[in-house]
Amino acid sequence: MGEFDLIKRFFTRPTPRAVLGVGDDCALLQAAPGMQMAISTDMLVSGRHFFDDVDPRALGHKALAVNLSDLAACGASPVAFTLALALPEADAAWLAPFSQGLLALADLHGCELIGGDTTQGPLNICITVFGEVPQGQALLRSGAQPADEVYVSGTLGDAGLALAHLLRDRARLVGGRADAPESVATATLLPLSADDLAQARLRLEWPTPRVALGTALRGIASAAADISDGLLGDLGHILERSGVGASLDTTAALALLGRQRYWATTQALLASEALRQTVLQHVLGGGDDYELVFTAPISQRAGVQAAAVASNTPVTRIGQIDALPGLRLLNAQGERLDYHFQSFDHFAAKV
Amino acid sequence: MGEFDLIKRFFTRPTPRAVLGVGDDCALLQAAPGMQMAISTDMLVSGRHFFDDVDPRALGHKALAVNLSDLAACGASPVAFTLALALPEADAAWLAPFSQGLLALADLHGCELIGGDTTQGPLNICITVFGEVPQGQALLRSGAQPADEVYVSGTLGDAGLALAHLLRDRARLVGGRADAPESVATATLLPLSADDLAQARLRLEWPTPRVALGTALRGIASAAADISDGLLGDLGHILERSGVGASLDTTAALALLGRQRYWATTQALLASEALRQTVLQHVLGGGDDYELVFTAPISQRAGVQAAAVASNTPVTRIGQIDALPGLRLLNAQGERLDYHFQSFDHFAAKV
Repeated sequence: MGEFDLIKRFFTRPTPRAVLGVGDDCALLQAAPGMQMAISTDMLVSGRHFFDDVDPRALGHKALAVNLSDLAACGASPVAFTLALALPEADAAWLAPFSQGLLALADLHGCELIGGDTTQGPLNICITVFGEVPQGQALLRSGAQPADEVYVSGTLGDAGLALAHLLRDRARLVGGRADAPESVATATLLPLSADDLAQARLRLEWPTPRVALGTALRGIASAAADISDGLLGDLGHILERSGVGASLDTTAALALLGRQRYWATTQALLASEALRQTVLQHVLGGGDDYELVFTAPISQRAGVQAAAVASNTPVTRIGQIDALPGLRLLNAQGERLDYHFQSFDHFAAKV
Repeated sequence: MGEFDLIKRFFTRPTPRAVLGVGDDCALLQAAPGMQMAISTDMLVSGRHFFDDVDPRALGHKALAVNLSDLAACGASPVAFTLALALPEADAAWLAPFSQGLLALADLHGCELIGGDTTQGPLNICITVFGEVPQGQALLRSGAQPADEVYVSGTLGDAGLALAHLLRDRARLVGGRADAPESVATATLLPLSADDLAQARLRLEWPTPRVALGTALRGIASAAADISDGLLGDLGHILERSGVGASLDTTAALALLGRQRYWATTQALLASEALRQTVLQHVLGGGDDYELVFTAPISQRAGVQAAAVASNTPVTRIGQIDALPGLRLLNAQGERLDYHFQSFDHFAAKV
């Protein structure tokens, strides 16, 4: 199967929104009047962003999901994407499920595959995604103001926890991942039942980009980022770009991990101070969750709530923005904690 | 050197045209009124698209050049690009010249680096480029009409010839390249002096995207493509998408190789019928030249000439479009030749 056959068979679809789709030297897009185009690109490498024996359907899903998550963080609506793919061989048994996972998520978001490139080489997936957002309404990392409140969507830590368990189970580290804080790999692992691991693994391998929440937050959130590298790192980008600091309520943060499946377990674990720190490390440092962290003025509490309801996405308030640079972790009484995480060090070194 | 330091040090530049450049979840572009956005993506893999010991400055240049060439083929003006980069290690001694080669060409075309991704992995460069073209004026592969004439810019064959010599000199085939017709690797090699090889190698490693010609051909050319896979293959895309055929004047095509440095040599070689075929194979099948092949109505001969002059780009008329599908090679007397090339077979199997 040659390059052109491969493209025709697996990746050529109707593109009603694009002026011109796959098959020419370029694709053509026409922005609607008053809209800006949001653009993001992500490259996924075998052995670093995914295990080489990962379900290709999940990989197709995730490759697009991580890009849609960047659009969500900007409040942009997905429009189209390009796919560049290096493959060791043109294997239909791999390409069929990969393209199905990819295109099912694309269809869900009305995001058209408009072009790409395929070549022989070590497995590498590079997607560039295009979204649209009304002029001046994009959510930026740079808009956080002192006294704004800090929110996180969904739950955090499951993906990193699943990865840590999978890595341990394989008894080899696959070289770690450039985007994951080392803390994930080296942390004491929370115990997980087989069922819980299966659920956590779904978060790792089938992330849900928070596109509906992102667009609902236009005009409400003051700043936003998606959580791909861990909450501390990604909130850190907001703080750095906005020139501010933040205080986080660790009790609220702890509940982000427990809220869904692990609540009962977590309640028991939290009695131990050492385990509290371990849980917190997973919540604050675990990557790959693809939730949104965002800030909004106190006056927008109702707006944030309405956006959460409209997008059917849970949202938790976990802290506030300070004029003082740096990131402070507080207990429920507002007292500063002296927890010291590797990802926190990394962040602290930057602001 | 971490990912963020690397981006800051080598790849963060001012982006006066973009609404938002490197450093947020997405970049933001605003199309000028009445403009469409042309988008293309190319992935370059070590050992397949370039030798692993290639000059990193040349590689940076070529990685963007092949993308700008796609914009040129659509008649689009470069605006911006994203860069996704997998690197075995964050090596400043490699990254500095790579980024210099890349950004020098970007500056030459006013094409802004607006975002990207870096990760550890086998060397892989994926660029997605954005250009703008007035609504409805993009040059497409699908517009060729019977009786239109076929043109090629610049010269053809040097890049493929240099590659074939380099491959032979290395006495190993590096696995061939997915994008190159096998004919290049297996053809009888034309003899090249060391000086001529150095010149031909410049064409292989430092291709010149024909951006000025592409934009000058708006409203004049009926169809266009860039020549990355060889003339026969890329003209074949035009024929297939336009539902037409073509006849090529092989004498005019032969002169495409000889016009610059090899003219004297070529004149001597052409006395031999076997060598004529070898030269023709290089001209028709050699990839990596990044010239444009385009068609235009006879009534636009003066327009084509004016575009060539305005863009300071030589252009040669080498044939015409026929209603009859397929590609015919003719001698100077208009008689059909029975040359049989591998890349021609590949093409013939497609239309």
